[in-house]
Amino acid sequence: MKKYLLALLIFPVLTQAQPMFQEGMSDSAYIKMISDNVLKSKSADKNLYNLTKNIGGRLAGSPQMLMAEKWGAEALKNAGADKVILQECKVPHWVRGNGDMASVTFLQNGKTISIQLSMVSIGNSVGTGPAGIIAPLIKINSFEELEERKDEIKGKIVFYNCPFQDEFIQTFMAYGTNVKYRTQGASRAAKYGALAVLVRSMTNSTDNNAHTGTLVYTDSLPKIPAACIGLWDVAKLDSLFAKGISIQAKLVTHGMMLPDAVGHNVIGVLNGTEFPNEVITVGGHLDSWDINEGAQDDGAGVVQTIEILRAFKALGFQPKHTIQFVLFANEENGARGGEKYAEESLQENEQHIFAMESDAGGFTPRGFGFTVNENAWAKIITWKHLFEPYGADHFSRYGGGTDIEPLGEKYGTPMSSLSPDSQRYFDLHHAAGDVFENVNMRELKLGAINMAGLIYLVDKYGL
Amino acid sequence: MKKYLLALLIFPVLTQAQPMFQEGMSDSAYIKMISDNVLKSKSADKNLYNLTKNIGGRLAGSPQMLMAEKWGAEALKNAGADKVILQECKVPHWVRGNGDMASVTFLQNGKTISIQLSMVSIGNSVGTGPAGIIAPLIKINSFEELEERKDEIKGKIVFYNCPFQDEFIQTFMAYGTNVKYRTQGASRAAKYGALAVLVRSMTNSTDNNAHTGTLVYTDSLPKIPAACIGLWDVAKLDSLFAKGISIQAKLVTHGMMLPDAVGHNVIGVLNGTEFPNEVITVGGHLDSWDINEGAQDDGAGVVQTIEILRAFKALGFQPKHTIQFVLFANEENGARGGEKYAEESLQENEQHIFAMESDAGGFTPRGFGFTVNENAWAKIITWKHLFEPYGADHFSRYGGGTDIEPLGEKYGTPMSSLSPDSQRYFDLHHAAGDVFENVNMRELKLGAINMAGLIYLVDKYGL
Repeated sequence: MKKYLLALLIFPVLTQAQPMFQEGMSDSAYIKMISDNVLKSKSADKNLYNLTKNIGGRLAGSPQMLMAEKWGAEALKNAGADKVILQECKVPHWVRGNGDMASVTFLQNGKTISIQLSMVSIGNSVGTGPAGIIAPLIKINSFEELEERKDEIKGKIVFYNCPFQDEFIQTFMAYGTNVKYRTQGASRAAKYGALAVLVRSMTNSTDNNAHTGTLVYTDSLPKIPAACIGLWDVAKLDSLFAKGISIQAKLVTHGMMLPDAVGHNVIGVLNGTEFPNEVITVGGHLDSWDINEGAQDDGAGVVQTIEILRAFKALGFQPKHTIQFVLFANEENGARGGEKYAEESLQENEQHIFAMESDAGGFTPRGFGFTVNENAWAKIITWKHLFEPYGADHFSRYGGGTDIEPLGEKYGTPMSSLSPDSQRYFDLHHAAGDVFENVNMRELKLGAINMAGLIYLVDKYGL
Repeated sequence: MKKYLLALLIFPVLTQAQPMFQEGMSDSAYIKMISDNVLKSKSADKNLYNLTKNIGGRLAGSPQMLMAEKWGAEALKNAGADKVILQECKVPHWVRGNGDMASVTFLQNGKTISIQLSMVSIGNSVGTGPAGIIAPLIKINSFEELEERKDEIKGKIVFYNCPFQDEFIQTFMAYGTNVKYRTQGASRAAKYGALAVLVRSMTNSTDNNAHTGTLVYTDSLPKIPAACIGLWDVAKLDSLFAKGISIQAKLVTHGMMLPDAVGHNVIGVLNGTEFPNEVITVGGHLDSWDINEGAQDDGAGVVQTIEILRAFKALGFQPKHTIQFVLFANEENGARGGEKYAEESLQENEQHIFAMESDAGGFTPRGFGFTVNENAWAKIITWKHLFEPYGADHFSRYGGGTDIEPLGEKYGTPMSSLSPDSQRYFDLHHAAGDVFENVNMRELKLGAINMAGLIYLVDKYGL
């Protein structure tokens, strides 16, 4: 990848005069100007490369979180922010530790066989301690089955195996349906005396990578260790259970929650010329899981946010409203950044007129989701045709994002989210494959172009 | 990848009763039934795996072409074709040979430096002979520049360096604008005495892979060797030229055209119940370049074609018109399969009412292009909403494909092409990266679903 960066650096720099934003130019002409500028620029490529390859995974509380905050502030400044604000917030500080493993042992054709599983601890999970947990494995396909078989759970490790429903066109629907096994599975099983849980990874990928994510413990129940495993190994276990073979599982994990750390939302501000106290927010989250580079989740949203600012400045666009370009802290395992941003906004007495988040990957944009009132929706749908040339013309009536939802809840701020193509997202999401190489920069930039177009229209016409 | 196939084979088989096609069910209900069936099935996965991994690159005339024909006939039969036809056609038989190389030598800071370039011969190109060609390299950015500098060309190797225009949203537009340097560059340079050409690969990828493709020699001019080179090496050469450094290039290639070979279009037929002599054609091309697995180009189109047949049969759909599922021969370097298909159709006195091709990759579908008359278009646009849930609702007024265009020309057959997302296509097209691993099977299947929906509507309502 070093070579790739070198190749980027020696690409000829375009020195021709840039067309500039002019009052009175048509909306479609302006969006085309943004599009040309963004597609020809290599800024987003360099930003994503630096964030993913030079910093990498950046979970809340980690040294990489601090590096990313510093990098983000610098990148927003370089992109032309009028000012950059570091907004302090306490963040949870979970560490994975080293040497996690999961294995299964069983008797087949008279031989004792042991298999190591592709696994990762679920974020916020407690560890097993160095000796690990060894117990019989029980396969449970759903919470309904868990309830039916609650008397069989005690003293066992529960293997949740609920596959993604392939028939959903939007893979987020499959994720939304199944993610409860990762988030609640541990406590639901602990209630009946389980010692630990192994959860089928939240993916429809064709590789064997395990996918992490976060869990939420029920306070009144014992906290038991939880890990996810890869799909090839799920298939192996499935075939053993189908043959009625008894399986002993061993889990060794080292997860631990340390005292809260200090993190920051990193905010670039473009001052509004007419309504400086009315704010449009656009952002993604700066943190990522620790087992990958957080390239699609959410390096893409971060880089798009910076890129929109860069393009606006490069084209001489002066917004009427203040635009805040926000790199949120701690979306992954606590959502404290979004909470903090909404609180501070309230204290500063800002009027938040619109908030947009990109946290569904940097894949080719297909549209936007909107959580807005009827009047705003009536206005928004008149803009649909402007996005058709750039692919983001599927508009739906629900939009948001973990980081901006506190704004929506506290102020009723109209919210929107970019809706990229979702087919590949859960191949990479929270797994080792979410790296720079698995981002197509043109797809990411098309997202930024459409987002910039929408911000431009909201700034010009209001909602 | 063996492991992947194993994992596929041990996935549990769905044994629940299939819903079946019924007269009177709504169009949207029927398309949903196709969608569920295709997304839940693993047939397409297995077909693409076998075509790419067990057969691989399958250029016209190669042993792999014959293997692919046999495989295709078997796959169409297994999918439920009423009959399978092998339609013989002569195909060009170009071989690349072994040991191709390109290098450049130059003097920098008093030292002689030699660099090997990432290169591939252009298909149908003559070879240099084993001794190769050594000559000064001249950089030419466009055919306009070639004409201006025609007196400098003699005795040199021409390096065509015209980059893809990044600002096109559809990458096929960038390809269409530049591909003339690959197809005509050799003869245009030979006219002024060039000894060979090196062409910037037709791609906007971020890797250094060289991309092949076909060229067309002008009969009246000397045939000179031609090769494409990868973009990192293009950038290197560019920086040397920018410093005014003189470059000596060496090219050794072994391409050779052998006598025509015998190939076949492989056609699966589903007999029409009401209008058996009226034919709907759907297809992709079975051949591919030799330096990759032809997974996106056009394994995807082939597998989609077979998948549509399989799903129709599985759902008990009996078309009113005859549907021909065609795996065309020799699209890449001769287009003889499409010519032959149209000729035979004429002789058989078939009425070809509609033809559709998928040859733009198995990426998430965005829509269809149509080359149809005004009446047909007026009908087609009333169907647009049916495709919105499945993503293929961008309908445009031009559609076709190399293999079905002879039908369009000879009969005026209404034509259509699937329009998948184009951002990644030219990263892989005709280069080493076009392999099974770079196909997302859900994306490919979504293409098949939309194509099946369109065939169903044309069969039901006519055009």
